[in-house]
Amino acid sequence: MIKLDIHKSGIGESDLGKIRPEIMESFGRLVRRESEMMGWLDLPERLSKGDAELERVLGLAEEIRTSGSKVTLLVIGIGGSYLGARSFIEAAGADEGVEVLYAGNHMSNRELVKTYKIAVEAENLYVVVISKSGTTLEPALAFNMFEKLAHEKYGAEANKHIVAITDAHKGVLHDVAKAKNYGMFVVPDDIGGRYSIFTPVGMLPIAIACGVGTARELVDGAYEASRDLMGGEFGDNAAMQYAAVRNLFYRDNKKVELLASWEPSFGFAMEWWKQLFGESEGKDGKGLWVSSAMYSTDLHSLGQFVQDGSPILFETFVEFADIPGADELPLEASSGELDGLEYLDGKTLAYVQKSALEATKLAHARGNTPNISLVLPDSSAKSLGYFYYFMMLSCAISAYTLGVEPFDQPGVEMYKQEMFRILGK
Amino acid sequence: MIKLDIHKSGIGESDLGKIRPEIMESFGRLVRRESEMMGWLDLPERLSKGDAELERVLGLAEEIRTSGSKVTLLVIGIGGSYLGARSFIEAAGADEGVEVLYAGNHMSNRELVKTYKIAVEAENLYVVVISKSGTTLEPALAFNMFEKLAHEKYGAEANKHIVAITDAHKGVLHDVAKAKNYGMFVVPDDIGGRYSIFTPVGMLPIAIACGVGTARELVDGAYEASRDLMGGEFGDNAAMQYAAVRNLFYRDNKKVELLASWEPSFGFAMEWWKQLFGESEGKDGKGLWVSSAMYSTDLHSLGQFVQDGSPILFETFVEFADIPGADELPLEASSGELDGLEYLDGKTLAYVQKSALEATKLAHARGNTPNISLVLPDSSAKSLGYFYYFMMLSCAISAYTLGVEPFDQPGVEMYKQEMFRILGK
Repeated sequence: MIKLDIHKSGIGESDLGKIRPEIMESFGRLVRRESEMMGWLDLPERLSKGDAELERVLGLAEEIRTSGSKVTLLVIGIGGSYLGARSFIEAAGADEGVEVLYAGNHMSNRELVKTYKIAVEAENLYVVVISKSGTTLEPALAFNMFEKLAHEKYGAEANKHIVAITDAHKGVLHDVAKAKNYGMFVVPDDIGGRYSIFTPVGMLPIAIACGVGTARELVDGAYEASRDLMGGEFGDNAAMQYAAVRNLFYRDNKKVELLASWEPSFGFAMEWWKQLFGESEGKDGKGLWVSSAMYSTDLHSLGQFVQDGSPILFETFVEFADIPGADELPLEASSGELDGLEYLDGKTLAYVQKSALEATKLAHARGNTPNISLVLPDSSAKSLGYFYYFMMLSCAISAYTLGVEPFDQPGVEMYKQEMFRILGK
Repeated sequence: MIKLDIHKSGIGESDLGKIRPEIMESFGRLVRRESEMMGWLDLPERLSKGDAELERVLGLAEEIRTSGSKVTLLVIGIGGSYLGARSFIEAAGADEGVEVLYAGNHMSNRELVKTYKIAVEAENLYVVVISKSGTTLEPALAFNMFEKLAHEKYGAEANKHIVAITDAHKGVLHDVAKAKNYGMFVVPDDIGGRYSIFTPVGMLPIAIACGVGTARELVDGAYEASRDLMGGEFGDNAAMQYAAVRNLFYRDNKKVELLASWEPSFGFAMEWWKQLFGESEGKDGKGLWVSSAMYSTDLHSLGQFVQDGSPILFETFVEFADIPGADELPLEASSGELDGLEYLDGKTLAYVQKSALEATKLAHARGNTPNISLVLPDSSAKSLGYFYYFMMLSCAISAYTLGVEPFDQPGVEMYKQEMFRILGK
């Protein structure tokens, strides 16, 4: 479903052939389920074949969506505990009856006040808090604030407005949620935060915001990806080849990967991608620095550097063969009185975007930045489900090939230790 | 007003001493006004001493702000024609009576439909279109669409709802605006897009969205910066020293600068900064790649790489001594029943943020990423005005020291040429 185009990368079949054995070896570690943190590999299949926890997630989502007046969904989480859900909700768009807010993902007084004011006014507020341990500072502080608010608003009914997604057996959040009879779902032990979008961590907010049908399509797409990519050979496996190409660029001293999209709604999907790859690979003094660009706006910004600056980048375009929204309400370009744009009259905006995209790939490759493209058929929930699985799989293969462990993040603890020392914990 | 802290950079006084002559030479080119594109250097002073064009801008802004029902301001522009205004409006927050929309900064069908639907419903719509030539594709196409809408909505009064900021004498937009009697302001010939925030390009949208008083404070801050920094010596000139430090890192093979903020409202200011430096320096195969991180959220994402990944980065923190919003409504941390956060009870969120910031600087410097800090007193309009001028000046000095021309952007034309060829212009 996802096609990889490497024509403008400068990388040829023989380069791919050389790195192929290493990629196959990395892939083998996934096939053999070498790590305990590979639960995400089989999850879409399990979910597609009927899963009691998923049905419970979707059931609660449906209940909330039909609970009367407009729903305000407040998602409390940080990093992998919220980026998957947010990236999909922004890409697909929340339904009109649902307003989605986020908290626990920053330490900004101004931002938290803004969110709090909206939550206070909300008629029908649901708080979904996501934290494996319950002790991560940002979500814990935000939860204390909004839990209190929910109790003020709903009194004895507050427990129906609070859901905790946390460890199955232990931890602060687990214990509180159990004691107070909040809704509860499990963050599995064998799936890390950045690989968690198909667990309740991602699925509950998504199903509340976008609907149960959309959530099922998302899983369908991931399951299709797992069938295509976990069985495929190197030659027709775009996930393996993407991992190969990344490592070849890295060895060729292109130390920065720039992910580029043309759809503003895809901006948070790029943030998800940055967390996935940055946290999986950026360790032991290794890894590609991951950046993102939103075109065409950034062509009038970073574009100058990409064209002509330090030759340290390669660019990965994420494209949609069917341009998002162009079917629902296609826009046509039209010229003004003197602007000389008559040659565009009657052409669709989607056509203009595609032309600009081709031009950009040509120009950048001729300049200092080789590029590759990942082409999705469209921006449907199913295609995005495929995309998430594709990226998680590619990332694990790529990290093993780089020679690092894809499923830990020891560096994230360093600032926390310093912080707790300074705060006098 | 802005303090530079280099204690965690690994750069010492002797390193600064060595590069000082080069920095002074670059600075001399600015003092001597060597380029025709240095109009921005004296602009804040000129504006502060009474400027007819600025008074006309502020007068129209006031008229629009008091024109009755809630104002919907649609700003059409791309790159330097909109990033300055947007970055300030997002940082300061638009007043409650003004809703701000943006168009002409992308080629997304979905995004444009979204904006169009809001504009159709808007009671009191004002279209401000910014383009020197009027032929840049994205703003030209968007303007054709929204100009038509304004005429549909307001008939013979439409010209009171459309303002063009464009060339003083020539070009498509100039000619159309003149013929149709739209409001008109000038993009000066001696100031490029990314240095244009204090021209009408930035000032009109800012004054409409945030008020005339706020716009004047912004200019005050820039004027203060020009007095401090254009006169100062290297030893007490943070703008020169920032330019020095950037070039020292670059020569030490740190090819990526990561700008980090802790305030989500500052996100677009980082986009403005990326355009300024990326487009000024990214040429002739040279330049620092410019990235940004929003903490603490990105500590749970890119943080792993910054701590422990490839040693190709340095980090520049933008700090506010007074945390934004903490005076208006200070939030206190509070612990939950079992979460062990009692040690934070009664401490403000601002205090927690500051502690986390210190911890992050310590941890990252001990890991693979040295860092520096730029400390602003607060996030007031005056301080931000200082910040914009500081950055433009530093950028020009830094680019000259790197050995490139700060005021052109030849690479941006490359994709446009390809695009016009493909589109059959």
